[in-house]
Amino acid sequence: MSIPAYATIETRPLGGVELGRLDAYWRAANYLSVGQIYLLDNPLLARSLELKDVKPRLLGHWGTTPGLNFIYLHCNRVIQRDDLDMIFITGPGHGGPALVANTWLEGSYSEFYPDVTPDADGMRKLFRQFSFPGGIPSHVAPEIPGSIHEGGELGYSLAHAFGAVFDNPELIACCVVGDGEAETGPLAAAWHSTKFLNPARDGAVLPVLHLNGYKIANPSLFARMGRDELASLFTGYGYEPLFVEGCEPEPMHQSMAAAMDAAVERIRQIRQQARDGGERGRARWPLIILRSPKGWTGPKEVEGRKVEDFWRAHQVPITGLDRHPERLQLLEDWMLSYRPRELFTEQGELLPELAALAPAGERRMGANPHANGGSLLRDLSLPDYRDYAVMVEEPGRTRAEATRVMGQLLRDVMRANRKRANFRVFGPDETSSNRLDALFEETARTWMEPRLPEDEHLAPDGRVMEILSEHTCQGWLEGYLLTGRHGLFSCYEAFIHIVDSMFNQHAKWLKVAGSEIPWRRPIASLNYLLTSHVWRQDHNGFSHQDPGFIDHVVNKKADVIRVYLPPDANTLLHVTDTCLRSRNFINVIVAGKQPQPQWLDMDAAIKHCSAGVGIWQWASNDQGAEPDVVMACAGDVPTLETLAAVAYLRELVPDLKIRVINVVDLMTLQHHTEHPHGLNDREFDTLFTTDKPVIFAYHGYPWLIHRLTYRRTNHANLHVRGYKEEGTTTTPFDMAVRNDIDRFHLASDVIDRVPRLGYLAAHARQVIRDKLIEHREYIRRYGQDLPEVLEWEWPY
Amino acid sequence: MSIPAYATIETRPLGGVELGRLDAYWRAANYLSVGQIYLLDNPLLARSLELKDVKPRLLGHWGTTPGLNFIYLHCNRVIQRDDLDMIFITGPGHGGPALVANTWLEGSYSEFYPDVTPDADGMRKLFRQFSFPGGIPSHVAPEIPGSIHEGGELGYSLAHAFGAVFDNPELIACCVVGDGEAETGPLAAAWHSTKFLNPARDGAVLPVLHLNGYKIANPSLFARMGRDELASLFTGYGYEPLFVEGCEPEPMHQSMAAAMDAAVERIRQIRQQARDGGERGRARWPLIILRSPKGWTGPKEVEGRKVEDFWRAHQVPITGLDRHPERLQLLEDWMLSYRPRELFTEQGELLPELAALAPAGERRMGANPHANGGSLLRDLSLPDYRDYAVMVEEPGRTRAEATRVMGQLLRDVMRANRKRANFRVFGPDETSSNRLDALFEETARTWMEPRLPEDEHLAPDGRVMEILSEHTCQGWLEGYLLTGRHGLFSCYEAFIHIVDSMFNQHAKWLKVAGSEIPWRRPIASLNYLLTSHVWRQDHNGFSHQDPGFIDHVVNKKADVIRVYLPPDANTLLHVTDTCLRSRNFINVIVAGKQPQPQWLDMDAAIKHCSAGVGIWQWASNDQGAEPDVVMACAGDVPTLETLAAVAYLRELVPDLKIRVINVVDLMTLQHHTEHPHGLNDREFDTLFTTDKPVIFAYHGYPWLIHRLTYRRTNHANLHVRGYKEEGTTTTPFDMAVRNDIDRFHLASDVIDRVPRLGYLAAHARQVIRDKLIEHREYIRRYGQDLPEVLEWEWPY
Repeated sequence: MSIPAYATIETRPLGGVELGRLDAYWRAANYLSVGQIYLLDNPLLARSLELKDVKPRLLGHWGTTPGLNFIYLHCNRVIQRDDLDMIFITGPGHGGPALVANTWLEGSYSEFYPDVTPDADGMRKLFRQFSFPGGIPSHVAPEIPGSIHEGGELGYSLAHAFGAVFDNPELIACCVVGDGEAETGPLAAAWHSTKFLNPARDGAVLPVLHLNGYKIANPSLFARMGRDELASLFTGYGYEPLFVEGCEPEPMHQSMAAAMDAAVERIRQIRQQARDGGERGRARWPLIILRSPKGWTGPKEVEGRKVEDFWRAHQVPITGLDRHPERLQLLEDWMLSYRPRELFTEQGELLPELAALAPAGERRMGANPHANGGSLLRDLSLPDYRDYAVMVEEPGRTRAEATRVMGQLLRDVMRANRKRANFRVFGPDETSSNRLDALFEETARTWMEPRLPEDEHLAPDGRVMEILSEHTCQGWLEGYLLTGRHGLFSCYEAFIHIVDSMFNQHAKWLKVAGSEIPWRRPIASLNYLLTSHVWRQDHNGFSHQDPGFIDHVVNKKADVIRVYLPPDANTLLHVTDTCLRSRNFINVIVAGKQPQPQWLDMDAAIKHCSAGVGIWQWASNDQGAEPDVVMACAGDVPTLETLAAVAYLRELVPDLKIRVINVVDLMTLQHHTEHPHGLNDREFDTLFTTDKPVIFAYHGYPWLIHRLTYRRTNHANLHVRGYKEEGTTTTPFDMAVRNDIDRFHLASDVIDRVPRLGYLAAHARQVIRDKLIEHREYIRRYGQDLPEVLEWEWPY
Repeated sequence: MSIPAYATIETRPLGGVELGRLDAYWRAANYLSVGQIYLLDNPLLARSLELKDVKPRLLGHWGTTPGLNFIYLHCNRVIQRDDLDMIFITGPGHGGPALVANTWLEGSYSEFYPDVTPDADGMRKLFRQFSFPGGIPSHVAPEIPGSIHEGGELGYSLAHAFGAVFDNPELIACCVVGDGEAETGPLAAAWHSTKFLNPARDGAVLPVLHLNGYKIANPSLFARMGRDELASLFTGYGYEPLFVEGCEPEPMHQSMAAAMDAAVERIRQIRQQARDGGERGRARWPLIILRSPKGWTGPKEVEGRKVEDFWRAHQVPITGLDRHPERLQLLEDWMLSYRPRELFTEQGELLPELAALAPAGERRMGANPHANGGSLLRDLSLPDYRDYAVMVEEPGRTRAEATRVMGQLLRDVMRANRKRANFRVFGPDETSSNRLDALFEETARTWMEPRLPEDEHLAPDGRVMEILSEHTCQGWLEGYLLTGRHGLFSCYEAFIHIVDSMFNQHAKWLKVAGSEIPWRRPIASLNYLLTSHVWRQDHNGFSHQDPGFIDHVVNKKADVIRVYLPPDANTLLHVTDTCLRSRNFINVIVAGKQPQPQWLDMDAAIKHCSAGVGIWQWASNDQGAEPDVVMACAGDVPTLETLAAVAYLRELVPDLKIRVINVVDLMTLQHHTEHPHGLNDREFDTLFTTDKPVIFAYHGYPWLIHRLTYRRTNHANLHVRGYKEEGTTTTPFDMAVRNDIDRFHLASDVIDRVPRLGYLAAHARQVIRDKLIEHREYIRRYGQDLPEVLEWEWPY
């Protein structure tokens, strides 16, 4: 291998006419971008600018915008010439004006928003609406045609781009990575995605690393790296870098066109070799490194202070026009420097010879159906989940590993959709550890790197995506879903917090797309399986114990979030089926992987999961009477401990009437006006009573249950046990004891809260105390849990 | 520049005797590691192993451990030879047994834990306690001497290492980066840290990328990359890679010793050039790439299945000894392969000629004071924060930008501690944007890359650390604090979620270190300034609006978390001073950067902040009477809207008695038994009454206030307004309106909840409705807020 393998291509592929038109088109996009930031009216500058034409609040980001316009233009050129299927991912999403401008120029904008016509009146609306109350956001938000990436939080563009092209063999995602974003961790990891990209069945990502020079107030690290170092870095990452550097428009157009030609040709070759020649190894994909001035073509200076090619170009280069009316002229000169009269007719229409530069129909990047993935979405073919049921003849006597059973279902989902190639499973190296390994009977891990004879379940056409980067997993999956496919992310519960902020952004996207943008078709839900959870970190310890993702999730809009805590394998099967069928949600499933007692046969599981919450009559002894106490539980370990406590109490104080309630669908606890799954007050009161003590054993932080139920009638009698951040490397039962959620503490909570027990209470308390002492001594001595705990079975 | 610049050094620096001893020491560490995973008793194998000697639950991770032992050993060698000041950062923290073994061998373990003596009895305890209930965790947790990095959640080792060596000119942090961890985003970004490392004043990081080959069930990406690609990648990152590859111990010792010698020499040269020669540019630092088999020296196979050099070596290679007693012999053979009788005396002491290989005293990595940073911590020299007070003659008439005022204080903190060089400010390119730019009157941004004439505030010796990676900022700061220094992280509020999981891990570290490990001295608190907050994202939009970090924070132990919402500049000054003086906390300060009315003069601010919550008498009109309603607020924008609503109501319904309460210290709301800052019930009831309606305007998600107060007497009358996830690019006041937290909605809430208002209520409702309509029409037309809102002043 010869490194560094980089090049500035010296050919000049553009003839004079084409060059002139391309530059004109670019000027048009730049003109429209400036107009969006500044103007309320007078869009064509038909008369001199006046203060009343200018927005009172000047908002937006100019700095990155001309570069985005430049790249978009050159994508258009190759799309049109080669009839390419291409989408555009805008890493610097704050350059919203560029994408609005370009989709309006190509006509797709006006198709989605017929009110914003392709003429002067539409241009006026286009300008006015930008970053204006009641208008459109400043970023490349869901409102913008052709976008699957908002770009507000930096770091995820590249993973989104790869997610979009997996299983889309003809698609190319041109992904602009800003030099600010390039500094983030998630982006730095995502460069490795080519190690998972199979040119025989996947599309291509064409990254354009845009060295725009500056962030908000600071040079970017990448822009100050030399060419040698950049070339070395990206060669090491596995790319073939192509440099485009400069500031003079004409040579830059030539250089960019040459680089695009080379990149598209390289992609064609890679595809051909993989598809015809059967080349199975990882390819060296092209990457364009574009170095251009920040705020390119904008004011060079404003009142003696450098603006173009400096960080001051980041947002609005000329401000304070109301206090400095002389700056109006600066603005007008700037806009006129694009020579709008050579670009638009007097009616504000783009000149036909320029309009002809844009691709047509669905080849326009604003109209590419992949960027409105719901429009391409096909239902998964799903096997009957009931066929995977664990036989449960009597509750609590059978043991099973819930996720292992789920794995069998997932295997057959994979199998049933093999041809459609629209389902993948993602996770950071934990598919086997999380006991979903039945998947490997049907498919393998995606792997383009060299393989050794002893390797198992690695293949270029594998459909399980494992990289030890939760960020990359999440980004890939989001990209995959947003382009109309299906997937599941399995993760250690504690470490899903790594993608908290990515979850936020996806939830925000779904909220806006689902409730405010009719043309965005619903996409498949983002499904999380959180396993290896807080209660079972036997090999690890405190750092692996955190059930707080649920708390984080429920802060987002009820329209888009669902949380399930199936207590056993059959309920997990039902929940999985529900989640895989759903649309536009984020579904969080929390389920353990360890052998656990099974409670419900399939019929009971269906009934229970359909309601989301219910009384377990078979475990209760309050039939036909008011209970003395309600024992509620959510989550597999809390369910086990609750039932063990119930059995224990029924032995200790036989005439105590206990009602057992299990919660699968956590959002049923919330009021129905707050979440569509919520119970109404009558339903809630019927279950939880209005005045009896409720001992609630919950999988996560206990206060979440209070938060969800604080308005319920019986809230004052609700006593919640959960994880209270006490952990270490210890036995599973000791973890429960440390957090007071074990059977003995739960039984004790009941004793303390049922006043009528009288003398029985004192006896029961003593027995429980003795049990806890026995536990402590036993694990201190033997390092494992009491045999009666390990072997406990539901006795009734 | 010639790239790739990598080398496998061919010298053989070790003589026969030294080589033999080094290898013996390594075998001792490996022996002790296996013993920890397996044995309850019979530590020296004085008799044949029996099942009763073996732990019933076999827990731990063998795979990475022998490699860690190997690296630790070779660090010891150069430390001793060159009297180096070195600490060890264990990226693969699950290799806990290695660090326990080595600190025991060097004697530091027994000094911290005198019970675990350096003899057979101590060895038995050492083995038994590992991953055993009541013992020690399996990871490199706070319990382990010499550690500042738990390593359970992967991704942060390198940033921690750099944080540790900033301003520690003689320190070297040897940082082992596992090839699993290397796949994560945060780690991938942290390689750029050398671009911020000034060899003239900072120490050095010696990264050892450990290509251990496999993760849990999968090859690692880096291990399957070729040497050329690795060399190219790390040359591109700015390092000089040195390769050590193989599996035969003797040549590997020679190769590793040669690489360590070369690396240490290179570090010495870099230091010398920078310190004597005045070389001011970025250095090319050495990096060791160590490729060795996973589970090195462990069983090659177990029952025909490959273990060594494969992923099956990840955890416990031989299991099921109770069911397969023949495997006992395998285990015994494995342990005896280290020839313990050549390593330890019959009393279990390490042979003196081996013990002599470890450094002495504080040079031992387990005893290095930098790894118990609190022991080196010196108080910051703090100027009197009252000197920076904003003059507030009458509440609500002065305007100021709170963070700009704080910046002046921080500038002088920086100045006052210039000589000690123990304070840095961190943030992703937002120090100026967040209006802390007074800092640049005293210092600059750290910058080792090339500079241009137009650059401002960039210098190799700058003390403001900006990289567009929240992960790197957080990791650096944690490393800086854990080694006994002080700092502050300023961040856009929404994007602090990027480090949610890092916050978790630091909070867990503080909890354990502070409450369970007496020898760990308290360290300076981790201080967050969250600004550019949810209510003021004028240039951005929905993606930048998320106040949920507070919710995330309060899930952690009350012992370690503090949350402050100062409503103006003087309260922010007081809070900043408090946070900078505090120890072992994570302090979250949320404060806006925009011009806002100022409420309290410095005396009032001190009184108010000291209480954390209080009645603002000057704004209330319930003096000497029971109020009709309590209007509470927390956060700068909610405070403004609350006071505007109060003024409005006092005009509309003059005889309404309103009590205004402001909350600075959020945790005062919680019960005093749950948080040390919490009010007791009497205090709470005195403020919030037991039966009057309370309208609470809160900065973040409203349910958090319910969660904190659900047990309070008057909770049923508490009505909270906050951010309910409604956002876009719009005006500041419209953001409040969209979330019903504006003055008009708040006034309306009061009207709705005070029954006695009678006919006045209907009138007031109509006026309020009209106001909201006026607002909507005004912003739709003019794109900015009503003048009466923009210009509003407190009228009393």
